[in-house]
Amino acid sequence: MKLSNRILNMQFSPIRKLAPYAAEAKKRGIKVYHLNIGQPDVKTPDLFFKAIENFKTTVLAYTESQGMDELQESFIEYYKKWDTEFTKDELVITNGGSEAIMLTFMTICDPGDEIISPEPFYTNYNGFAQTASAKMVPYLTKAEDGFHLPDREVIESKITDRTRALMISNPGNPTGTVYTAEELRLLGDIAKEHDLYLIADEVYREFVYDGLKYTSTLSLKDIIDRVIIVDSISKRYSACGARIGLVASKNKEFIHNVMKLCQSRLCVPTVEQIGAAALKDTPESYFIETRAEYQKRRDILMEGLGKIPGVICKKPTGAFYVVAKLPVKNAENFAKFLLTDFEKDGKTVMVAPANGFYATPGLGEDEVRISYCLNCDDLKAAVELLKAAIEEYKKTRE
Amino acid sequence: MKLSNRILNMQFSPIRKLAPYAAEAKKRGIKVYHLNIGQPDVKTPDLFFKAIENFKTTVLAYTESQGMDELQESFIEYYKKWDTEFTKDELVITNGGSEAIMLTFMTICDPGDEIISPEPFYTNYNGFAQTASAKMVPYLTKAEDGFHLPDREVIESKITDRTRALMISNPGNPTGTVYTAEELRLLGDIAKEHDLYLIADEVYREFVYDGLKYTSTLSLKDIIDRVIIVDSISKRYSACGARIGLVASKNKEFIHNVMKLCQSRLCVPTVEQIGAAALKDTPESYFIETRAEYQKRRDILMEGLGKIPGVICKKPTGAFYVVAKLPVKNAENFAKFLLTDFEKDGKTVMVAPANGFYATPGLGEDEVRISYCLNCDDLKAAVELLKAAIEEYKKTRE
Ligand SMILES: Cc1ncc(COP(=O)(O)O)c(C=O)c1O
Ligand SMILES: Cc1ncc(COP(=O)(O)O)c(C=O)c1O
Repeated sequence: MKLSNRILNMQFSPIRKLAPYAAEAKKRGIKVYHLNIGQPDVKTPDLFFKAIENFKTTVLAYTESQGMDELQESFIEYYKKWDTEFTKDELVITNGGSEAIMLTFMTICDPGDEIISPEPFYTNYNGFAQTASAKMVPYLTKAEDGFHLPDREVIESKITDRTRALMISNPGNPTGTVYTAEELRLLGDIAKEHDLYLIADEVYREFVYDGLKYTSTLSLKDIIDRVIIVDSISKRYSACGARIGLVASKNKEFIHNVMKLCQSRLCVPTVEQIGAAALKDTPESYFIETRAEYQKRRDILMEGLGKIPGVICKKPTGAFYVVAKLPVKNAENFAKFLLTDFEKDGKTVMVAPANGFYATPGLGEDEVRISYCLNCDDLKAAVELLKAAIEEYKKTRE
Repeated sequence: MKLSNRILNMQFSPIRKLAPYAAEAKKRGIKVYHLNIGQPDVKTPDLFFKAIENFKTTVLAYTESQGMDELQESFIEYYKKWDTEFTKDELVITNGGSEAIMLTFMTICDPGDEIISPEPFYTNYNGFAQTASAKMVPYLTKAEDGFHLPDREVIESKITDRTRALMISNPGNPTGTVYTAEELRLLGDIAKEHDLYLIADEVYREFVYDGLKYTSTLSLKDIIDRVIIVDSISKRYSACGARIGLVASKNKEFIHNVMKLCQSRLCVPTVEQIGAAALKDTPESYFIETRAEYQKRRDILMEGLGKIPGVICKKPTGAFYVVAKLPVKNAENFAKFLLTDFEKDGKTVMVAPANGFYATPGLGEDEVRISYCLNCDDLKAAVELLKAAIEEYKKTRE
């Protein structure tokens, strides 16, 4: 009885890997501030719960494989805000953005095929690529440059005859980087010249700060048939547990083929679709308030990090993460230390070692991803703990 | 921009493929009796909806990747009925039985690996195998034998060095066949001798008629570390839209590795998990009544089919499907005819051509799968329509 090499080569989530140590710490009575996960604490709009409460049925039946009409329509409506008119045969409802990515990889990659992406990138792209027996091929972006794209040649040097797509998360997880219109144009041009798809994971589209204008990959009208959009309500409406996402593309042939996979897994949960469809009536004020709140948190976090000697971190403008270089040799050891050997007044903090967000071994060893999904007071307390912990760690461990 | 060969080689669901013709028929005002789909019409226990109604939260958060504690516990409780004590590290909540199958294939198969199964089999096994770049390798079972297993040699002749598992659906979809204790023993012995996993898709476990005792693959205690159970609440509680299933195994290493995939897709929907966990209090009377109802329907269907000259179909004892040989050359053409060219008093019937349930080309061409998820009156009307349609078809088309 063998396990597949595919699975043996896969890693456990670097975000969740330290969870047992956190559980232990909590058992010892220690309060752990979670700066490690992207679980927003913002309220899910009540519309979601109301719709579910009002949903009456006697038989909880399968829905259409592409998603319920009303949910497809609500997304079609939503995209008009982004100057795009989708039709129902151009988008498919999925089990979160996660399934949208997996379906995309399955549909365009055969075993051995490659997807090119800046690193650090959302760590689960690796998992989905391995599921498809495909490979993430990274090019490096750096903390010093705010993780913006390198020159065209650097990206092009990664292209082989196995390359199927360029992929970005915009805004980026883990970097918080918002790509400029010029950067998207560059990716579009490369995709066109080398006949590739351009996969844009825009699940954080709504989270852009400092009044910056967000450019969606949907704006690349001349190569729109190459663009595949991954989206999700998880972050936009703080509805992670609903597991509702979608994959959308003006390339109908792509979506038509995605449907084969959708039919085999039958459909996406009915009750959660009902809730999700109701979110279309969320007032614009919800986004404005949420954005303002996150911007405030980012500023608190950046101010706090700025006071820790040796920390390098450019202010990001999107999502709710930053990647910070710490003045330690091995950030994973430090992250573990936070949970096993550190506490101050019965409190500690948890961060995600950033090495798991790099595909190239040895990179990101002194970096952590910090998520600012905590309220402002907790966030302040958490950064102060981080400061104290780094001091103690450097004194006693390195 | 290429699509993957994986996806190009995949088919659309043979169960759903005639759906556009049915939609057209309905547009013409024709009532279509659906004998083609396995969507039960039995009421979902109210416990499910009550639990959701009582679920109050402000942030709809991700749950644990292996599923919520209370849902895992409810399944652990359920399996005691089947003489098995699972622990939490032996079962993982999935997006329906569908995802359970996909995760299993991903975990044990590399590209090119093989899963051996009797044919006809649940057509989506093909889709999941292709997703993993693996292959379903069928051995034939026949209508005349009630689709029971062939001799040991026949099964063993399919084993190669790429074989990873034997798989059965028990009771079978599309056949309705319930395998005997001896048949399971045989599969267990072969799995042991050839060092294979034994995947048992038991989503219809509760649907066994004529007072027959059901033998779960879980009873093969001596090879229990080879047994992988696929399960789902879809049929058991008529809760298909909940998309809650699980994969369970006493082989902790297998489950441990499945968890890597689960972590990358984050989790299963929260609200539906809440509903599903409440189903553990479903009284035994629910199953007794449901079973009695389906048995009655099966009898009505069999009686009706018995009156159609030339139909061959042994009475099945489980699930809610039968595979019937029809006195037509091409059952797919006939199934299409039902929707495009036939009606009686403004009514017609839809069946699933069985060829899509065979992996071997050319098999099942004169067979259909008939599902008896309709109430008794509708079912009677539907079989009579089928009789009339066959007469007309034979007179005018063949
Ligand atoms: C960049 C990015 N893409 C996709 C996802 C998947 O989210 P979900 O499956 O909840 O929609 C996440 C979740 O954290 C993410 O950060
Ligand atoms: C034999 C069999 N296995 C698995 C499934 C998957 O069901 P679900 O994903 O709804 O649990 C089905 C659905 O019809 C089935 O018939």
